Amino acid sequence: MNILVTNDDGIFAEGIYKLAKVLSKKHKVFVVAPDRQRSATGHAITMHHPLRTQKMKFFDTDIEAWSVDGTPSDCIKLAIEAILNEKPDLIISGINDGPNLGTDVLYSGTVSAAMEGAIHGIQSMAISMAYTKNIDYNIGAEFASKMVEKFKENSIPENTLLNINIPDCKKNDIGGVKITTLGVRRYKNSFIKRIDPRGQVYYWLGGDIIDEAQNESSDIKCIKDKYISVTPIHYDLTKYDLIETIEKWNIRI
Amino acid sequence: MNILVTNDDGIFAEGIYKLAKVLSKKHKVFVVAPDRQRSATGHAITMHHPLRTQKMKFFDTDIEAWSVDGTPSDCIKLAIEAILNEKPDLIISGINDGPNLGTDVLYSGTVSAAMEGAIHGIQSMAISMAYTKNIDYNIGAEFASKMVEKFKENSIPENTLLNINIPDCKKNDIGGVKITTLGVRRYKNSFIKRIDPRGQVYYWLGGDIIDEAQNESSDIKCIKDKYISVTPIHYDLTKYDLIETIEKWNIRI
Repeated sequence: MNILVTNDDGIFAEGIYKLAKVLSKKHKVFVVAPDRQRSATGHAITMHHPLRTQKMKFFDTDIEAWSVDGTPSDCIKLAIEAILNEKPDLIISGINDGPNLGTDVLYSGTVSAAMEGAIHGIQSMAISMAYTKNIDYNIGAEFASKMVEKFKENSIPENTLLNINIPDCKKNDIGGVKITTLGVRRYKNSFIKRIDPRGQVYYWLGGDIIDEAQNESSDIKCIKDKYISVTPIHYDLTKYDLIETIEKWNIRI
Repeated sequence: MNILVTNDDGIFAEGIYKLAKVLSKKHKVFVVAPDRQRSATGHAITMHHPLRTQKMKFFDTDIEAWSVDGTPSDCIKLAIEAILNEKPDLIISGINDGPNLGTDVLYSGTVSAAMEGAIHGIQSMAISMAYTKNIDYNIGAEFASKMVEKFKENSIPENTLLNINIPDCKKNDIGGVKITTLGVRRYKNSFIKRIDPRGQVYYWLGGDIIDEAQNESSDIKCIKDKYISVTPIHYDLTKYDLIETIEKWNIRI
């Protein structure tokens, strides 16, 4: 398969290296990724300045790789429409350093890159290690390889993608794989207020997770139980069952 | 009502001025908006540098206003959690200079700000002028006022918001108001390749809209027919009806 790999942690991140390297054993892999850390960029695209691409040596591999001074979504757009000669069969975004679970996927550059792939009609998935310390990316890379085999035999409908998270434990302690829904993630004390040496106030986005009761089917519960979560997602934000209600509001000009 | 107003065109844009000014006749309005143009930022949030806020004189008004050197989503988070003393009753994002229709809402800073409001459990809407030349923001501001009256009598469920677009025509030529779904918007020739004076390649994101056959119920069709579109949206990206299918893939570790 021709596989396009991107991420939001930047082209020099360990996660994208491990992922691309494992996949390149059996597949033709292309890497097009941000030139630096671009996490929490959501589905941002770059319209107000031009984008530059740079052909790169990708670590110790022969994988063809380009860095882009844009967002993860820019990388996918550029790869498909300007850099690669043919459409890839599959897009994988990751392996992300940290979770992309529940409501938080809205802010995720990793997930948005895979979503951009789906918008382009390409089978796509995002993969994240759902923890941030002592990450063993090999577990994620190996699971991604397995998923590629699944994508050889199966496909997901246009306009959809898969969001995968790997729990924080040793490989042998993983309970299995669950197909999940997006849970709800809320934060408290989101901003930390500080004063700079010139007496001016500034704020850091912080925030403690409020561990709400989660639906049994949710990705958050699944990860807590040490299962790999695979969530099918789409990007049609229409709230269909609210249309009739709003029609009754009887809005006039 | 206490109304929080933001946008993605920046605090000095005409759209936010017209909106806040009209609303302030009957309501207590607060403006918290980006210090500059931040369109196409999607649902980006700022994690890797701190945010600064600045209390501002808002044009010729007495409206309390703050600028933030962050994204529209940052503005809503900061307003609710650090700047305002109480939760607003309603959040309005706009009036945007240009359409926010169909698939493009994924990239929209305007819509993401309203979505951030919904995530915080506040009634929220986004409003955009669906054209870019000779914009008459008064039409949008007046319609927003009418919607505020509707929000006094009605409410939308938690986790949902309304996305409003105003068609490109004189007020008298507007056909009415339709409650719509998000249409599909695709582009071709997305990138324009140029060479800089030093011989280096760079790309501008451009793109011509491919006018696909649109569903009769879609916002894109509605705007083309010169009606105001009101689309109820939500942010639960789970593709529920795909769960069973993926379960049959029988994925193992």
